[in-house]
Amino acid sequence: MTVVVRNTKRTDLTLVDSLGGIGVATIHEAQGRTGLMAAHLRPIYRPVRIAGNALTCEVAPGDNWSIHVAVELAQPGDLLVVTPTSPCEDGYFGELLGTSLAAHGVRGLVIDAGVRDIAELTEMGFPVWSKAVSARGTVKETPGNVQTPIVCAGVYVRPGDVVVADDDGVVVVRLEDAASVLERSRTREANEADTRRRLAKGELGLDLYSMREALEKRGLRYVDEDERGTDAVEA
Amino acid sequence: MTVVVRNTKRTDLTLVDSLGGIGVATIHEAQGRTGLMAAHLRPIYRPVRIAGNALTCEVAPGDNWSIHVAVELAQPGDLLVVTPTSPCEDGYFGELLGTSLAAHGVRGLVIDAGVRDIAELTEMGFPVWSKAVSARGTVKETPGNVQTPIVCAGVYVRPGDVVVADDDGVVVVRLEDAASVLERSRTREANEADTRRRLAKGELGLDLYSMREALEKRGLRYVDEDERGTDAVEA
Amino acid sequence: MTVVVRNTKRTDLTLVDSLGGIGVATIHEAQGRTGLMAAHLRPIYRPVRIAGNALTCEVAPGDNWSIHVAVELAQPGDLLVVTPTSPCEDGYFGELLGTSLAAHGVRGLVIDAGVRDIAELTEMGFPVWSKAVSARGTVKETPGNVQTPIVCAGVYVRPGDVVVADDDGVVVVRLEDAASVLERSRTREANEADTRRRLAKGELGLDLYSMREALEKRGLRYVDEDERGTDAVEA
Amino acid sequence: MTVVVRNTKRTDLTLVDSLGGIGVATIHEAQGRTGLMAAHLRPIYRPVRIAGNALTCEVAPGDNWSIHVAVELAQPGDLLVVTPTSPCEDGYFGELLGTSLAAHGVRGLVIDAGVRDIAELTEMGFPVWSKAVSARGTVKETPGNVQTPIVCAGVYVRPGDVVVADDDGVVVVRLEDAASVLERSRTREANEADTRRRLAKGELGLDLYSMREALEKRGLRYVDEDERGTDAVEA
Amino acid sequence: MTVVVRNTKRTDLTLVDSLGGIGVATIHEAQGRTGLMAAHLRPIYRPVRIAGNALTCEVAPGDNWSIHVAVELAQPGDLLVVTPTSPCEDGYFGELLGTSLAAHGVRGLVIDAGVRDIAELTEMGFPVWSKAVSARGTVKETPGNVQTPIVCAGVYVRPGDVVVADDDGVVVVRLEDAASVLERSRTREANEADTRRRLAKGELGLDLYSMREALEKRGLRYVDEDERGTDAVEA
Amino acid sequence: MTVVVRNTKRTDLTLVDSLGGIGVATIHEAQGRTGLMAAHLRPIYRPVRIAGNALTCEVAPGDNWSIHVAVELAQPGDLLVVTPTSPCEDGYFGELLGTSLAAHGVRGLVIDAGVRDIAELTEMGFPVWSKAVSARGTVKETPGNVQTPIVCAGVYVRPGDVVVADDDGVVVVRLEDAASVLERSRTREANEADTRRRLAKGELGLDLYSMREALEKRGLRYVDEDERGTDAVEA
Repeated sequence: MTVVVRNTKRTDLTLVDSLGGIGVATIHEAQGRTGLMAAHLRPIYRPVRIAGNALTCEVAPGDNWSIHVAVELAQPGDLLVVTPTSPCEDGYFGELLGTSLAAHGVRGLVIDAGVRDIAELTEMGFPVWSKAVSARGTVKETPGNVQTPIVCAGVYVRPGDVVVADDDGVVVVRLEDAASVLERSRTREANEADTRRRLAKGELGLDLYSMREALEKRGLRYVDEDERGTDAVEA
Repeated sequence: MTVVVRNTKRTDLTLVDSLGGIGVATIHEAQGRTGLMAAHLRPIYRPVRIAGNALTCEVAPGDNWSIHVAVELAQPGDLLVVTPTSPCEDGYFGELLGTSLAAHGVRGLVIDAGVRDIAELTEMGFPVWSKAVSARGTVKETPGNVQTPIVCAGVYVRPGDVVVADDDGVVVVRLEDAASVLERSRTREANEADTRRRLAKGELGLDLYSMREALEKRGLRYVDEDERGTDAVEA
Repeated sequence: MTVVVRNTKRTDLTLVDSLGGIGVATIHEAQGRTGLMAAHLRPIYRPVRIAGNALTCEVAPGDNWSIHVAVELAQPGDLLVVTPTSPCEDGYFGELLGTSLAAHGVRGLVIDAGVRDIAELTEMGFPVWSKAVSARGTVKETPGNVQTPIVCAGVYVRPGDVVVADDDGVVVVRLEDAASVLERSRTREANEADTRRRLAKGELGLDLYSMREALEKRGLRYVDEDERGTDAVEA
Repeated sequence: MTVVVRNTKRTDLTLVDSLGGIGVATIHEAQGRTGLMAAHLRPIYRPVRIAGNALTCEVAPGDNWSIHVAVELAQPGDLLVVTPTSPCEDGYFGELLGTSLAAHGVRGLVIDAGVRDIAELTEMGFPVWSKAVSARGTVKETPGNVQTPIVCAGVYVRPGDVVVADDDGVVVVRLEDAASVLERSRTREANEADTRRRLAKGELGLDLYSMREALEKRGLRYVDEDERGTDAVEA
Repeated sequence: MTVVVRNTKRTDLTLVDSLGGIGVATIHEAQGRTGLMAAHLRPIYRPVRIAGNALTCEVAPGDNWSIHVAVELAQPGDLLVVTPTSPCEDGYFGELLGTSLAAHGVRGLVIDAGVRDIAELTEMGFPVWSKAVSARGTVKETPGNVQTPIVCAGVYVRPGDVVVADDDGVVVVRLEDAASVLERSRTREANEADTRRRLAKGELGLDLYSMREALEKRGLRYVDEDERGTDAVEA
Repeated sequence: MTVVVRNTKRTDLTLVDSLGGIGVATIHEAQGRTGLMAAHLRPIYRPVRIAGNALTCEVAPGDNWSIHVAVELAQPGDLLVVTPTSPCEDGYFGELLGTSLAAHGVRGLVIDAGVRDIAELTEMGFPVWSKAVSARGTVKETPGNVQTPIVCAGVYVRPGDVVVADDDGVVVVRLEDAASVLERSRTREANEADTRRRLAKGELGLDLYSMREALEKRGLRYVDEDERGTDAVEA
């Protein structure tokens, strides 16, 4: 049985937008290195950064029927997250679906499969993170679940979780963690500003982070090139 | 025996240029989802779109000798299509060959292997779709067939077939189908213009394409989030 | 035992900078087709070309501790070369390390692993060639060797070897070969200028390189399309 | 914070063992084509089939510390399921851990990473499904969660879910669905026995499954070879 | 339009069976290094060698409907060759289809996609060469062409061409070339028997094939280890 | 210039044979986790374990000429190590070369490329570790260096270094380290025997290796399933 779930929860857009102001790498660290999608998802244009509420959708291989179903459930501030039930790089999504989603306030697409019409989507400013670019269209024979929890690019995503995506990749923040992750992310950003200033002046990370003693305990040894035996040059 | 075939047929350039005005995804659909090369072929710069008559060339692994042979057979409006006899990502083609082909009116290159000098080729405006970028040059010891039918990136291509390439990929239209595919492509484009307008106003694909009944027959069921059992959240 | 080697030799920066004026493909040819790193290393932005003295660094999977150690050994004109002890695509390097290296005169990074903060590194103009882009940060538990000979992307690199990187890839020139490779590269460039001029006028490579006789000896045969049998069209 | 969860539920071993009598492909169909791990997981020896309660474990890249933690929580009938927090093909698991797990009644290992000592594990009859074989051992610096829900090879797995693995791959059955999936699987098996008998006698699937009319509706057309135009042979 | 072509030609089984007595590597050489499918096709069990008349079949991604159509056209001595219209690793084929094909005299399967039930197919002795093993079954919604020319794993195959497959891979011999390729293959085998005998006695290939002069002309130079400079050890 | 180096050093065969009695994983650990070739090298049959003196050989893509040159330099106890100058999966090596090498006492082949005739090589008992199996033969046009240091599958190998290979992979021991690595390997084996015995009795690694305190310091926390919040089940 294939299911479309209505009236799912969403994260408050104020929270979503605040998370959208922070980079994916920072959020990933701030929530304990969880929620990062696989690195094969790449944006069709750069630079770019967006955040939105996950609108989730499963698709059969070579079949994009359920994306049409998902559009009806879209709300402003959503970000469509699509996963195929088995690996497929066909172009499930193009300019027409981008136009339709944009008309309903959807901010972008994350898809663990292929996308097409990337020239047009780039010109429209509709951002997409995908596994591939492919001109191959899809059929409409086998619908998949919409707005159910899915696994996309290695991450478990539920409708209404926050998805943040930028040049570095895509991270998922759980609805119930959004506020606390935002706070921890901001703390990290504040700390990084000071660190960046000191590093820019030439201060060493070894000193800034007090690493020398720990490295010595781990057995790190400094030698001069001319103290090394001749055979040492063959690593 | 290695063969160079002279006086092969070509598609009329008026037809070729008309097909060049249409996107690869549209042409692929218009000809019944055939002729699309594998998605690993990517352009060295974007945006780009060209069409040309296939000038076909086989190369041995790490050996680009027959590309030099192909130049002599080039005619204005051609597009060089190169396939290695076994997978190889070396840089078979660079600025000098690009200069030579451009001097003979060749519009671009599709190669299921590597290319180099991409900074120079980009500056020249000589478009290339390749499997890889590699600075590794090739030898000239083993020639391959020129202007014979080949398989390139999964597609059977004959000299004089039309090759259209853009940001989405590369499609091959058979010489004898060029006129009919052009006509069907234009019909699709006209239909899409109307569809785009309606989707942009917020009309749903579900209604526009009358999908609701078919989806219900396929067993799609709508439920409310709070009707679902607790275990349902683990997909 | 993990080792950090101090006072390693470096190539004179005049030589390094001269090599930096020449493309990677040319240098690779000029030194007998050796020293080219694997083609999966790609720049985070284009166009770009740099050269520097190799500052070498091994890292454990998911652990960037030794990069911090390497910064202290950096000298102006260095180029950091990082290799993981087993394949890993995590984002070992980001904006903060880029800021720190730039403050010490390091010109860029070549890493057979992942990088993050590519929007910021692009804006800073800090060039990176990497195997992947990934927002996933790393831990600091297991240091690796610094300034020892390493294998990076298939090439043996010693501290102070010259690394040249551009849009086409990354090549390593041995310290002791730098002067002779520079000279041979310049000779090639001079020859190419003349060749380019002749090819641009339409002269054929077949004639320019006197290939016709050799091709005939290798059994290349020219036929007309209408001389071929009907079954010949199925390659 | 890293967590080890004790006293998690398990599926009754009678149910587990009954599911272990059925093939992975059948179970996957019987539960609506869900729960199948990615096809890159392959067994170290064949033929083989086991089922067990998932004992879940996350590991850092190149670090197998938490597998040692997991052993203490093992119960007879368990099957260890290990996922790295980022892709890694190191040999996380070998003969010693296999000996330890076997001593605690664990039936096998599913790991989305590498394994080593496969000669010894094969001789012991300790089955493993892995992404790679690698002699590279791992460190013990960064523990991961044990007995929490994880995503392994694209599937969401909770402690106590049933994992069935054979020559074809690995499938996960949710604890709460185990009984109903078993029943549906047995129904499928019964039907298949009759189908097999009829197919073995030469009856056609077209007739057995009454496909002819549906195919005709979908536009399938039968032609004789000599009715086709000459150009038709070039697909 | 989807087409099933009846009454296609086949190669005489005496010829097919004779080719089946020769290894794939020898046939590939004997027909001028053409017709070899990509190396990602691997047999499900070894050792194995078969030959048959190609019975060709296209399938949509995740959809095996046309395989059922193909069974009706099968004749004793056929070998089913299946290619997906876009890359897909699902398990298109299992024990039931194997039983059905075997009942109609089909000798095996070559599929550029996935297969399942490999334990059962191995036990039956029904050989399969595939790109992947996957328990994931397929739907029956979109038929593909049957008995038309296709491209499978990079090779153009027409119905009735001879397909030979063994532990090394899969090669296609064109119907019209079968007799001449058989003859050239036998000549090669005869020559190899003598060569093998001489090599087994310790004679060098350098002498047997008279390579020394050619190697010297190509610039090969012999040096003694102690004549080399110290830096020579760093390749 | 292409070079063949004669009279290179070799490791004493008593040492080589002793190392051949120890597994690759153990040797890799015993020499500080260095020298392990990439995991894509797999044996053509299992179980298998050999050790030999590296006889090194570079080959051009699709060209095995220098393997014939290498045979002349072979000595009993050698193991041929072949690396292509750019990635290539062609079948560089088959039964005839295997026969020739065996006649000269060579114990096996490690090749970062393809191999063919695997049925015959298996029957002969000539072991091969390769990246691929491919029936595609190679040409003899471009020789490569023989008995020079090379990089093979990510590892720097010099003539006369010891290569040990088994079901788990391939490791290189430097000539000058062979004796000390053997000693350390034997110590590890002795320790493992005791550990295995204790683990087989059910003793936990946590206790055997005294890990509990360290894990607690790293923040590992034990909780009961029913203490966890409801949202905790979504990892």
